[in-house]
Amino acid sequence: MTFQEIIKLHPRPTSLDRDARLRCINECLDCAASCTACADASQSETDVEDLVRVIRLCLDCADACGATGRIVTRQSAPDLRLLAAALEACSAACLASAEECERHAAHHEHCRVCAEICRRCKKTCDDLLAITVVETNNE
Amino acid sequence: MTFQEIIKLHPRPTSLDRDARLRCINECLDCAASCTACADASQSETDVEDLVRVIRLCLDCADACGATGRIVTRQSAPDLRLLAAALEACSAACLASAEECERHAAHHEHCRVCAEICRRCKKTCDDLLAITVVETNNE
Amino acid sequence: MTFQEIIKLHPRPTSLDRDARLRCINECLDCAASCTACADASQSETDVEDLVRVIRLCLDCADACGATGRIVTRQSAPDLRLLAAALEACSAACLASAEECERHAAHHEHCRVCAEICRRCKKTCDDLLAITVVETNNE
Amino acid sequence: MTFQEIIKLHPRPTSLDRDARLRCINECLDCAASCTACADASQSETDVEDLVRVIRLCLDCADACGATGRIVTRQSAPDLRLLAAALEACSAACLASAEECERHAAHHEHCRVCAEICRRCKKTCDDLLAITVVETNNE
Repeated sequence: MTFQEIIKLHPRPTSLDRDARLRCINECLDCAASCTACADASQSETDVEDLVRVIRLCLDCADACGATGRIVTRQSAPDLRLLAAALEACSAACLASAEECERHAAHHEHCRVCAEICRRCKKTCDDLLAITVVETNNE
Repeated sequence: MTFQEIIKLHPRPTSLDRDARLRCINECLDCAASCTACADASQSETDVEDLVRVIRLCLDCADACGATGRIVTRQSAPDLRLLAAALEACSAACLASAEECERHAAHHEHCRVCAEICRRCKKTCDDLLAITVVETNNE
Repeated sequence: MTFQEIIKLHPRPTSLDRDARLRCINECLDCAASCTACADASQSETDVEDLVRVIRLCLDCADACGATGRIVTRQSAPDLRLLAAALEACSAACLASAEECERHAAHHEHCRVCAEICRRCKKTCDDLLAITVVETNNE
Repeated sequence: MTFQEIIKLHPRPTSLDRDARLRCINECLDCAASCTACADASQSETDVEDLVRVIRLCLDCADACGATGRIVTRQSAPDLRLLAAALEACSAACLASAEECERHAAHHEHCRVCAEICRRCKKTCDDLLAITVVETNNE
């Protein structure tokens, strides 16, 4: 996607590993859109009453991924404790959404696919969090 | 991206052309992230005083693309007048951001690249808007 | 709210009527939060299957109000056509949400209250839009 | 604000103290708008080069407050670990933004006022976090 080129052109890039940041932003964008779509698909299902928790946690996850994706995108004068806390919140949101979607994966294919992207997004947040914590300790 | 699979799995999809919707969502995601990154790169430039309008319009464009991308993602029981108005607002935001970024394209490569994605996103919004208007008149 | 003080302290305020802007931002914030809460209350109702359209349009309205509230908040180097288009989109989203919530007002008090704030927010968007259009023609 | 009435009308409210939730949502809305306005005022100041970190952290804080405000607003089937992590991230964002705004409070009144609302928002997040942690341990 084009945004990756723009991130590479920043005049004062952060020292955090760039590939880990790009992966994390990419998965946050995809996960936010996937959770928005899964919440919307779920609320049109005939068993919507069983999907209340899926809808709620997908909406939460979309919010967390949207905010975290933007925070990771910014490189100017970052605050590493803030970044770490945002990544932890996003990871927790992805986990909650993945676990609930997995409970419905057998009868709703969109939940199965959504659980996968939530797991993938959680992984990239956890990876970038580990790098951020090391960097924080080096400050 | 994974979200496209989830959109295809909606139990009651809208009748609007699916490829046009997927293209529009994809460009909205990329444009929102690109404008967030361009505003951030611009505010770290030494000539930031000349880039106030780029920063402001990129932030506006990121907001418009984010909201419109989510509205287009939802398929349950849509309101076509709302959809058309959101696409018009997004198109206007992309145009304003593109024109301002183009003024700085010669000396800031991130502005040149950002203007391109804004133009591309505007095009997919205009295309989906045309389809939506036809559908609205058929109702 | 505190944000109003900060808006008054901008070093280069826009010429658009400040009270109309403050009213619009205030209603956008309240309407976005109200629609988020009404969508959430609706999806926990036992007749959730009848509320699919309320949920969907409240989520759309929350997105439109959030983006428009931020765009109106910014005063640096605005683009009036973009501002006008955003206000029109927000007004359309508020109208769609208000009309659908009104259909359920008799049996769901949260829908009745939500319809009222959507109507109020639409009014402040329309008022600011009228001012913006006059200003645009004077440019 | 009207959204508070709607939250009180939820058919299955969460057990977490309602006043603490309402205070937190209210401050998140105000802080998100205040930080959006302070970033915008800062980028129009003649000493904008000294305010790069204010702008960046205010944008981050607006994103965190926006997401957390929506997550706290929802009452359907919550995940308390996710809620706690979101409150921690918001608290960290408010702290970073408050500390940086305080460094510029003497010469920019909007930074002084913004630091106050960031501190206030952090306090309501910390209060709700303490309640959430107790509730999590009781589960």
